[in-house]
Amino acid sequence: MFAMTERGHGSNVRGILTEARYNQSTQEFIIHTPSKDAQKMYIGNAMKGNVAAVFAQLIINGELHGPHCFIVPIRDQNGVMWPGVSVIDMMHKEGLHGVDNGILIFEHVRIPREYLLSKFGFVAADGRYSSPIPSKQSRFNAMLAALTPTRLCLTVQAMAAMKLGLIIAVRYSHSRRQFGPKDQDEVKIIEHQTQNLRLMPHLAAALALTFTTRYAADLMDDALYHGRDLQSNRSLQALVAGLKAYSTWQNLACLQDCRECTGGMGFMMENRIPSLKCDSDVFVTFEGDNMVMLQVVVRELLTQYTKQMGNNLVMGLLRNWSSSASDSLRTSFLSFSVDKVGDLTFLLKAVRYRERVLQRSLASRLHSKVEKNKEEFFMAWNSCLHHVTTLATAHIHRVTLEQFALAVQECPDGDDRALLDKFCLLHGTSLVYQERAWYLEHNYLTANASRQIRSQLLELCRSVKDDALKVVADFNIPPCCIQAPIAGVANPRAEWAFYAQPQYPGGTQPQSKL
Amino acid sequence: MFAMTERGHGSNVRGILTEARYNQSTQEFIIHTPSKDAQKMYIGNAMKGNVAAVFAQLIINGELHGPHCFIVPIRDQNGVMWPGVSVIDMMHKEGLHGVDNGILIFEHVRIPREYLLSKFGFVAADGRYSSPIPSKQSRFNAMLAALTPTRLCLTVQAMAAMKLGLIIAVRYSHSRRQFGPKDQDEVKIIEHQTQNLRLMPHLAAALALTFTTRYAADLMDDALYHGRDLQSNRSLQALVAGLKAYSTWQNLACLQDCRECTGGMGFMMENRIPSLKCDSDVFVTFEGDNMVMLQVVVRELLTQYTKQMGNNLVMGLLRNWSSSASDSLRTSFLSFSVDKVGDLTFLLKAVRYRERVLQRSLASRLHSKVEKNKEEFFMAWNSCLHHVTTLATAHIHRVTLEQFALAVQECPDGDDRALLDKFCLLHGTSLVYQERAWYLEHNYLTANASRQIRSQLLELCRSVKDDALKVVADFNIPPCCIQAPIAGVANPRAEWAFYAQPQYPGGTQPQSKL
Repeated sequence: MFAMTERGHGSNVRGILTEARYNQSTQEFIIHTPSKDAQKMYIGNAMKGNVAAVFAQLIINGELHGPHCFIVPIRDQNGVMWPGVSVIDMMHKEGLHGVDNGILIFEHVRIPREYLLSKFGFVAADGRYSSPIPSKQSRFNAMLAALTPTRLCLTVQAMAAMKLGLIIAVRYSHSRRQFGPKDQDEVKIIEHQTQNLRLMPHLAAALALTFTTRYAADLMDDALYHGRDLQSNRSLQALVAGLKAYSTWQNLACLQDCRECTGGMGFMMENRIPSLKCDSDVFVTFEGDNMVMLQVVVRELLTQYTKQMGNNLVMGLLRNWSSSASDSLRTSFLSFSVDKVGDLTFLLKAVRYRERVLQRSLASRLHSKVEKNKEEFFMAWNSCLHHVTTLATAHIHRVTLEQFALAVQECPDGDDRALLDKFCLLHGTSLVYQERAWYLEHNYLTANASRQIRSQLLELCRSVKDDALKVVADFNIPPCCIQAPIAGVANPRAEWAFYAQPQYPGGTQPQSKL
Repeated sequence: MFAMTERGHGSNVRGILTEARYNQSTQEFIIHTPSKDAQKMYIGNAMKGNVAAVFAQLIINGELHGPHCFIVPIRDQNGVMWPGVSVIDMMHKEGLHGVDNGILIFEHVRIPREYLLSKFGFVAADGRYSSPIPSKQSRFNAMLAALTPTRLCLTVQAMAAMKLGLIIAVRYSHSRRQFGPKDQDEVKIIEHQTQNLRLMPHLAAALALTFTTRYAADLMDDALYHGRDLQSNRSLQALVAGLKAYSTWQNLACLQDCRECTGGMGFMMENRIPSLKCDSDVFVTFEGDNMVMLQVVVRELLTQYTKQMGNNLVMGLLRNWSSSASDSLRTSFLSFSVDKVGDLTFLLKAVRYRERVLQRSLASRLHSKVEKNKEEFFMAWNSCLHHVTTLATAHIHRVTLEQFALAVQECPDGDDRALLDKFCLLHGTSLVYQERAWYLEHNYLTANASRQIRSQLLELCRSVKDDALKVVADFNIPPCCIQAPIAGVANPRAEWAFYAQPQYPGGTQPQSKL
């Protein structure tokens, strides 16, 4: 069990209330839940698990050393509870029914001194505290950095759910027919403009996420292989936090469109989409609430330019950005008149421009609030929160489009490259289309260019709708994992839902290469 | 049981395949399912019900008379099936577990001639067919108009789910605290800019829907009281179809934000939001898929200007709009410079302008495609589908803002009027903010005005966040219907989720007046 979250503190982990007091005479820690808000909540496997990694405030001789992680026995293999530990079952959830979640309560629970996980902080027998990281703040960040790999895992899970949903919705949209020209066969529902407009951008985003996740995983593997601390890699922290938020929200939006685009069939459990939705709904909340993740992105982006923490980061960063950004911005403006919106280079420039302008304006706003007007930092930050989350989203959008573009360049197969190129253009078009109001406000798009972006989006969605069958086949998910009868996987319990797998219009069933 | 939908035809009801052949010798209809696609699907109460209203193609002496509705016995009170009828259980769904859904299959099922519901079409003993509505198309529309009242009911249900979700999320957001200024108490999460920005526009929309639904219900009551046919009231048909789509989508978006804004607590079944979401998810699909509803809105808007059906409607309507719209458009342009974005009048003009311009441009596009370029109507319509659904949304947005504004005007209590006024302004601001790209493209907003709209949205959400407690109290939903412990309703099964109901910052708990 991983026991970090408490009733009173989920996002603000630093504020957890569980206590771990060192008792020198017995060389034990006394783990204690001092109030209802200190109860460890939503703990997975709480009703069956034997051992928990519990985060608690380390207290030695009345002195607070901040959150540390302790191994606490919960019950033995016969289910007999460790003295002082009690649990409460939290019962039913929207999804993830395979995991039980419960509450852990500690009533002066005694554990040996050796049960402190001591990588970041060690307590000697005589009660002396030592740590390789002198700053309390940095030590806390180092502990939280342990969450970075699990956030990337969650991104992969969200992407898997998204791909499953898309396989099901795309195949059914190529099988199911409804409405059509007078006195002719009804058309496949993928032909309806709104249907391909709803599904194709999600498919492009799923591909973008695939390549961006590989990139993040490579960076992380590299850091771990070389024994580098993840927490000092600010851009990786920003990337993973941003990916976690972007992928889990994208997944929910995608699955919801898949549900609606498959109509009544999509509401039936046998077709998988409902349970994918319900299981992955909480992804936006756990392992760091998405709204908090977006703030982490911006915090990490800010601190990568300066070693100073607190309010002074605003100054350092303002200096840094104002010098580095002005030239690049000018380039963007100059190049505007010669670029075409149908060109990937234009789209890449647009998303880069947006991130830089949002960064610069946020830094300048924070600077004037905190440095000039002496506003309290939390209040100033909170009054910019919409700006902060917008910048974080712009950052992750930019990275996904860049990674997608790189993947296209490096693709060794000509046909695949041509196919990916179209989806990459679609992803970029969709990103710029979503934010076209911002580009219009900043005169980066003319009204005409903005209308062109819309036409381009509609046209691209129409033009890739048949290729979509090849892409979902290339996801390479075996039928035993797809299951849904409307996607061509027969199920004797729901014969009524079966639709034979649609033929790829190109002729033969596509071979997987991705 | 209401048995309209078939496996092969849900949205396109006219294409249903179930047959009802008249057998003159026995004076019976033979109800028959000729193929798998003709099976009646998703039928509520299929596993228990005794009688079904079955839509089938009426055939007399080989001549087709289109869909009619027949009373078909399914099983007697002991559960013994009527000869030739069989059912299949469709098992588990995402939600609505209180209703079983199943498939009805008819194998030459014989029913008496009198079992035809004969308001719109009558078959005499000798097989002669007669109808008070000569046109087949109009007759079909008259039958479908029976769905209009149930669509309005669904709007009310979606609104109820939305209000429940909002009560729970707003109260918890006023109870739960997280993060805050250094060395001070943590703040209520409603204080976080992103939290009130996510919840307050939904609350404004819930109020707008309340007044718009009352308006639609009044129109419908009036029509029914005077015995007028609903199907001839084009604007009512458009309104109800639009309301159904808008309210059910708004509800899902609202509940999703409520779920995410209540974090882990919102994922627990005891707090109600998951089941509200899962139950109401299918609202966007049944009683007319939302994408189809939006097309109904535009079709009805078009035909209310012309009695001609088919392609010629484009001509009539183009004539009509070009004459009526030009003056009003000019007014909007002229008034632009003197209006302020913070003024409700400006917002009302904006949403009216948007609807008119979208109408005019759609009519002109359809005209050039169908009349000039002789494109097939379905294909032309499909290539404009994004435009069509945008217009339909603009129409319903305009009506909700107008009805909200009227309700504010007519509110007898000064305090309530002042409160509603703020939420009405918020609703209008939120509608224009969502579509600011379009307004920028059409030079209806300057870049500065667009930025002002954003600031105004942020500021309004902040300023009404405490009033929100009064509004949700005024929804007047009794605690036994709210249930959720995080909203202050104790539940012995989940004491861990209880948060006392937050106090209204104004002092005393608000009295309900709305």
